[in-house]
Formats: sequence, structure tokens, C-alpha cells
Amino acid sequence: MQIEKPYLMFIGDVHDQLAAKTAAGIVDWRRDWCVGQLRLPGCKADLGLEDIGIEEGRARGARTMVVGVVNAGGVLPEHWVRSIVEALEAGMDIASGLHKRLEDVPEIAEAARRHGRQLHDVRIPSQTFATGKGTKRSGMRLLAVGTDCSVGKKYTALALEKEMRAQGFDADFRATGQTGIFISGRGVAVDAVVADFISGAAEWLTPDAAPDHWDVVEGQGSLFHPSFAGVTLGLLHGSQPDAFVVCHEPTRKTMRGVAHPLPTIRQVIDLTVACGRLTNPRIQCVGICVNTQALGEAEAKAYLAEIAAAEGLPATDPVRFGTAEIVRRLKAVFG
Amino acid sequence: MQIEKPYLMFIGDVHDQLAAKTAAGIVDWRRDWCVGQLRLPGCKADLGLEDIGIEEGRARGARTMVVGVVNAGGVLPEHWVRSIVEALEAGMDIASGLHKRLEDVPEIAEAARRHGRQLHDVRIPSQTFATGKGTKRSGMRLLAVGTDCSVGKKYTALALEKEMRAQGFDADFRATGQTGIFISGRGVAVDAVVADFISGAAEWLTPDAAPDHWDVVEGQGSLFHPSFAGVTLGLLHGSQPDAFVVCHEPTRKTMRGVAHPLPTIRQVIDLTVACGRLTNPRIQCVGICVNTQALGEAEAKAYLAEIAAAEGLPATDPVRFGTAEIVRRLKAVFG
Repeated sequence: MQIEKPYLMFIGDVHDQLAAKTAAGIVDWRRDWCVGQLRLPGCKADLGLEDIGIEEGRARGARTMVVGVVNAGGVLPEHWVRSIVEALEAGMDIASGLHKRLEDVPEIAEAARRHGRQLHDVRIPSQTFATGKGTKRSGMRLLAVGTDCSVGKKYTALALEKEMRAQGFDADFRATGQTGIFISGRGVAVDAVVADFISGAAEWLTPDAAPDHWDVVEGQGSLFHPSFAGVTLGLLHGSQPDAFVVCHEPTRKTMRGVAHPLPTIRQVIDLTVACGRLTNPRIQCVGICVNTQALGEAEAKAYLAEIAAAEGLPATDPVRFGTAEIVRRLKAVFG
Repeated sequence: MQIEKPYLMFIGDVHDQLAAKTAAGIVDWRRDWCVGQLRLPGCKADLGLEDIGIEEGRARGARTMVVGVVNAGGVLPEHWVRSIVEALEAGMDIASGLHKRLEDVPEIAEAARRHGRQLHDVRIPSQTFATGKGTKRSGMRLLAVGTDCSVGKKYTALALEKEMRAQGFDADFRATGQTGIFISGRGVAVDAVVADFISGAAEWLTPDAAPDHWDVVEGQGSLFHPSFAGVTLGLLHGSQPDAFVVCHEPTRKTMRGVAHPLPTIRQVIDLTVACGRLTNPRIQCVGICVNTQALGEAEAKAYLAEIAAAEGLPATDPVRFGTAEIVRRLKAVFG
């Protein structure tokens, strides 16, 4: 799956900004790829892009219309179908993050066939994978792991890609979730793969590469999350990282969706190394990324200094303070 | 999914005994459920059951015809379809372990609908699962884990179920793979579940139970297998075992299908405890089951004595020497 750029961003008539979170993430990281936004009457979200129609989108070169919204139940409202069919008729592909498959809407499937367009359901892996082999591949890999779900692993990987490129690395973000896939134009939603093929999918995502090329892999879940640790472990084994960064949210009391307390950063480092060694004996932690949004600036700095001293690793909030120090560490260790 | 008993065992015209391995496993553990075997001309396998036809199978009370074979590519040969349709017409359900779905063969799908019969594809989970919650459930659980795939985890779990019942335990085997599902009449092929739901499927399989009831759970893969460790970890978290047994094959040099060496038994115990604690802090190893087929009897006994002394745990070959000592240990620890 390769989603063709640039994108016309479709957000329908969603009722709040949160429902357009995926689309907003794409605009945050790939504004250059977005030629405008298409909103229906009553839409309460705004991506900060120019409002344009399908014809203007096409005139500006859009090759894919992105349905970057979440909706109650993941359904596709009937009154959105017309816009999607029109985009297909105008020669655009469609990429959707909804649970409902585009192909399962007869008018959309039929229009795509008639006009020879692609339909991308980014939540649903479209290819089959081999089982993982665990064989060492050429090139370098960095994985973002976490003390929990939703602690900034995607943001961290994207921020690292940007900073690594700025510091002269040949680095590419590798997406493992739907927003990430839109942002990179390719990837695989590893949590939607059949269980036997998790590590195989991660191997497909991070193939042999030039010796000094870095894949910067978006992590998923946590080795300590009782719902999703299997996904996390398969991704760790398949991506065989040389380096990893631990992401953390210090004010969270229990892990997302369950009653379990968060593990410590040290526990995550130790278990990641213990398990990751299986496919890359050189695995090591190169930094810690903390979402300090809930803390004042002085408090955040004190907290990061404390962690950095305790673990002997660079610790930062990638949003507030950037990731330059982690990338310098990476260069010192692997450069 | 509940497969109705008893079974008429269909093995078609497979070319060797190995192709009927699943069916042979069912006969090994549940001979009472098998009213006979149905073979087509040229069949080279034999389950040691009386050869009967569909009519006689039905007369003997068969409620399901089991297609318990593997075939190159998992396909369903066209000349088997007639027998399957006849069984449906005679009032039997069909349960298949092939990769090809019964429902995807139009004649079979149509006959099942016409006669109101069930089609069970045991490789393909038929229900949807919630994500795992990791909450402690009532009742007790034992999980068979391994240093590799195919080291006797299913055999061990079934042997333990039998011995536990003999020693007065209220114990039920819980199947996580296709042969196990035929043997228990229910279960879930956890390796075929979507990755996000591995631990949720294991929770579904081992629900709340009476305080002294034991689920004896068939393990899958190994925490040290680079292809399948994600499945193993999700199953460990979801089944939240109080006790586990490590299965091992001492002559194997590399893990199945990959180039990695086997971990030590001690490594498996340590990582299983480290990870299993997340959903059951009381988790402990109660024994080691070794497949000593490749060793002479004296050699096997010496090897088991050595392991038992090194780990301070009962060590046995469940086929050669039974599992009585492990079950006594279980009684001593949890009784």
C-alpha cells in the first residue's frame, strides 16, 4: 500500500475537533501534502487549511482524498458517500481510517472500479505477510516504546525523524498505526494483523537497507499492557531495533483502559532489552521522551533532570524541548 | 463455537499418515467420541477405526463429520466435496481444519443452509472478542509453555488434564489450536485472532470459574521464538496462569523454522514469571515436561534427574513416565 500524495482532506460534518484528530495529525506533520480541506455544512472541526471543493482539489493536484476522521462506531455516514464518489469520478484515490471498509459500500466500490481508482482502508492490512524470521537485516532501526498506550510514541518517532534528518542522518519514519500511515503514505496497522504475522509484518515494514540508513519505527502499546503486549512484543522482535526510546506520561495513574498501574521507566528499559536481544543483541536505550503537558515548565525541567540522572540517559519532552540531545546521543553511540 | 459429538472421522484419500495427524490426535485422546472413519479409495492413512460410510456413521449417532487432515496448501480437493455434502444431507455438521473455508465452497455453503447444519472452520475464529482487561478472575489456571514450537505443549496439557482428574482435581483442557479444538469440542485458534485481541481471546477461553476449578491451557509458540512470541505473550497475559509447566525437546538445535538457538529452560521460567506477573503475581513454575523420544530410557532418566535437580522442580516425559509427580506438586502448592 502506497497512498499517493498530495491529499485533499475530507472531514465531513464531524461534530468536534477531536473527531478530526487523525486529519489534524496529518496536517501537523505533512502540511505540504495537504492541498485543502473539504467540509460539509455543519462541520465543527477546522484543520486550518483553505476550504475547497473536489474540482479545486483536483486542480491543485490532489491524488488522494483522505477521510481522516473518527465517527461513532467507525461507520461511514450515508451523506458522505456522494462526496467520496465525486472524488473518485474526479480521478482521486480514497484513503480512509474508518472501521467500515470503503469496498463494502457498493456505490464506492463500483465507482472505484469504473474509474480505475484505489481504495485504501488504512486500518485493514491489504497485503499478506510471511511469518517473521528474526534474521538480522542490514541498516539501522530505532523503535519508540512506552510505559503505556497513548504516551506519545508516534509523536516521538516523527520528532526524531525530523531531528535526525536535521543532524544529517538518513532516516525514515515507519508507521504502524493509521494516523502514522497517512503521515508517511505507507505502513501497516500492526494491531490489525493476524496474530501469527505480527513480527513478519514488522519485518516487511523495515526491510534490508543501506548500512547507515535508519528506520524510525512508531511503537504500539506497551510490554506491560495486559491488552496489547503481544502486539508490542511482535513489533519489537520484527523491527529488531538497534536503539529504542521510552515514552512516558508522568501524571497517568493506571494504564489506558485497564486497572493496572504503570510500570516504571526502568522496568520498561529492562524488559525491552531482555526481549529485544532475541533478534538484536546490540539493542540499547538511547533516551526517554516524556509528555510533560500537565506540568509547569520549571517542574517539567526538574522532572526530566531527575529521570536523566537516574537512568543515565537523555530525557526530554519532544514537544517542549525537542529531541536534539537524544539524536546527539545516537550519533555518539552509533555514528 | 461448540462442535457437537460424536464424530465421524473423514480423512479423504490423503497420501500418508502424517497428513492425518490431526485426526490421529483426536483418536488418541477422544476415541470414545469417534464412531468410525470414512476413507476414499486410495487413502494411505489409517486411524485404526472401523471403516464406515455416512449412513452407518449417522446410524451410530455421529453429529459432526470431522475433516481432520492437512493437505498441500490447505485446499479442499474437489472430489471430497461430494462426501461433505452427503454428510450435511444426512444431518451432520462439518468441522474442518483446512485453511480453505467450508463456507467458501458454494455447494457446501448451500447444502448447510438447506439442511440447517453448522460449518466449523476451526482455524478461523468465528466470534469477535473484546480486548483483554487483565482483571483477576476466579478459578485456577495452568498454562503449558515451551522452549520452542512443537515441543509437546498440547500433549502435556492433555496429559495433565487426565492425571489431574485422576488425582481428584476438577480440571478442563482449554484448546488454543486446531487439533486441540477438535479434542475438546471448543476453543480458539489464538494464532488466527487479530493481534489486538490475543489476550482478550485467552480471557474468553478461560472465564471465571469455581475457586477450585482448573483450566489447563494449551500453550502456543515460545516467548523466545522470533516469529510467534507475540501470540505467546498475549496468551500468557490473557490466561493469567497460577501455575505453568515448561515443555522442551532436548535434541533440537535451532528453533522451528528459524536459525535461532533454543533458550534454556531456566530462561523460559524466568521470562514467563517476569511477564506473567503482570496479570497474576502468584505465577509459578510447577514442572518440566521433556520429549525424550530421541533418548534411550536410561539416558532419558538421567537427563530428567539432572534437570529436576538443577531447577528444583519435577521433570518428566509425559508420554514415557506420566505426569503424576507434577500433579502431586500442584496439589502440594495449591491444594
